[in-house]
Amino acid sequence: MSCTRLVLEYDGTGFAGWAHQPGRRTIQDELERALAVVRREPTPVTVAARTDAGVHALAQVASHAGAPTPARTLNAVLPPDIAVLGSVQAPERFDARYDATSRAYLCRVLARAERSTMWAGRALWWPRACDFAALEACAAALAGRHDFTAFTPAETQHTRFEREVLGAAWRMGAEPRMLEFWIEADSFLRHMNRVLVGTMLEVAQGRRGVTEFVALLGGAPRSAAGPTAPPHGLYLAGVGFDARVL
Amino acid sequence: MSCTRLVLEYDGTGFAGWAHQPGRRTIQDELERALAVVRREPTPVTVAARTDAGVHALAQVASHAGAPTPARTLNAVLPPDIAVLGSVQAPERFDARYDATSRAYLCRVLARAERSTMWAGRALWWPRACDFAALEACAAALAGRHDFTAFTPAETQHTRFEREVLGAAWRMGAEPRMLEFWIEADSFLRHMNRVLVGTMLEVAQGRRGVTEFVALLGGAPRSAAGPTAPPHGLYLAGVGFDARVL
Repeated sequence: MSCTRLVLEYDGTGFAGWAHQPGRRTIQDELERALAVVRREPTPVTVAARTDAGVHALAQVASHAGAPTPARTLNAVLPPDIAVLGSVQAPERFDARYDATSRAYLCRVLARAERSTMWAGRALWWPRACDFAALEACAAALAGRHDFTAFTPAETQHTRFEREVLGAAWRMGAEPRMLEFWIEADSFLRHMNRVLVGTMLEVAQGRRGVTEFVALLGGAPRSAAGPTAPPHGLYLAGVGFDARVL
Repeated sequence: MSCTRLVLEYDGTGFAGWAHQPGRRTIQDELERALAVVRREPTPVTVAARTDAGVHALAQVASHAGAPTPARTLNAVLPPDIAVLGSVQAPERFDARYDATSRAYLCRVLARAERSTMWAGRALWWPRACDFAALEACAAALAGRHDFTAFTPAETQHTRFEREVLGAAWRMGAEPRMLEFWIEADSFLRHMNRVLVGTMLEVAQGRRGVTEFVALLGGAPRSAAGPTAPPHGLYLAGVGFDARVL
C-alpha cells in the first residue's frame, strides 16, 4: 500500500488547532475535506505534531494512504490559511506521527514598547524588561533529558514526563527587537513550549533567577513554573525523521 | 509654534492608501481621527510618503502642529492596523513632507512554487523562474540620477521625471526563497517602485535583458517598461531628514 508524505504551512489564527473537534474549524478537517474532494475518497491523515489553537506551522508533516496528489491541485481547493508545500511518495506504511523522531518549534517575541501591526497574531508582544543573556542561559540549560512535569497542566493524559531536548537557543530575529526561541526535542508535552516561554520571560524580566528556572527541570510541580504564554507566537518549524523513512 | 514628529507602522491591507478620500478608509483619516480624540482639537497631519492602497509602512514619518502626545496614548485609540512607534517634539515648523530628503522602500518577493499562508498580502508571490544575478545587475544600474518616465503612468500630474537614486539592491531575505528589493531615492514618482519591480521580474524570468532594462532609465515611454506589480509586497521602510531638523 503506497503512502504519501505532505509538508504543510498554516496560519493558525483562524483554527481551533490541528485535531478534529465537532463544530470547530480545524486544520485536520480542512485538509481531509480537500483530500476527499481531490482524491474522490475519504482520506484520513496522521500528523507529526498536533498543534494548539492559534499555533502556526512552517513545515508540519502529515501522511495518508495512497498516491500523492500534486501540491498545486491541493492548494487550489484548500483555504488561503493552509498551503501544501510538498506532496511526495513515502515508503510503505509511512506514518507521520509514529515515524517522526523529533519536532522543532520557534517562538517569536517582539520586545518593544509599542504594539505591532505587522506581527499581531504572529509574535508575542513583550513591552517589559528583557535580559537577553538570562534567556540564553535558560536555553543552554534545556539541552538533554529532563522531567518537564512543571511545564504541562497538572491535569494531564501524559504518563511519561521526561523529554529529550536535542537543542535550544534564543537568538535575535531578522527584525529589530524580535527575539526567537528555537527548541528541538523528541516530542513535547501539552503546552510545554508555552509554559517554557512564559517562565523564561519571567526570568528575562528579573522576576525569577536562572538557577530557579533550571531547578524546575527536575520534575517540579506545575505550580512552581510561570504562566502559559499565549499560542500566537509559536510556530511548528520542522519535523525530523529517520533517514530510512525518507 | 511647537511641532511633533510621528513615526508610524501600518499594515496597508485594509486601507485605500495614505491620503484622505471621501467614503474610503485611509491611514490619514484614522490618524487624524485619533489625534482629534486625544488632543481634543482638529489636528491635520502631513506625511513624508503618500503610500498607495495596500502598501505597508515600517517607519512612515508624519508631522503635526502642537505638542507630542505619548505613543501609548495614541495607540490606545488607533485601530490595530496602525501603530505609533514614536511621537516626539520636532523643531519649529518641522514638516514631514517638505523636510524629508529621502525615502526608502522594501519590496518582498517570495520566489517559490507554492502560495504562502504567512506572507499572503505581505509579499509578492513569484512562482516563476528567478535569475537572482540578473536582478542584482538591474539594481546596480539604478544608483544615480535617471529619467523614470517609463516607470510611472503616462497620464500623470508629475512635471519632472528625474529622480536621484541613493542606493538600490536585491538581497536574500530572512526566510528561505524570500527576495527583498531595497531602494532609497530623493523621492519617487507615482507607482515607480511597482513598475520597477514588475519590469525587473520580467528580467529575472528571462523575458527581457538587463541592458534592455538599463536603457529604460533614459526617459523611455511607459509602454516600453513592464507591468505594475501589485502593491502588497511593498513597504515604506524609512525616511531620511537633514540632521538640522532632527
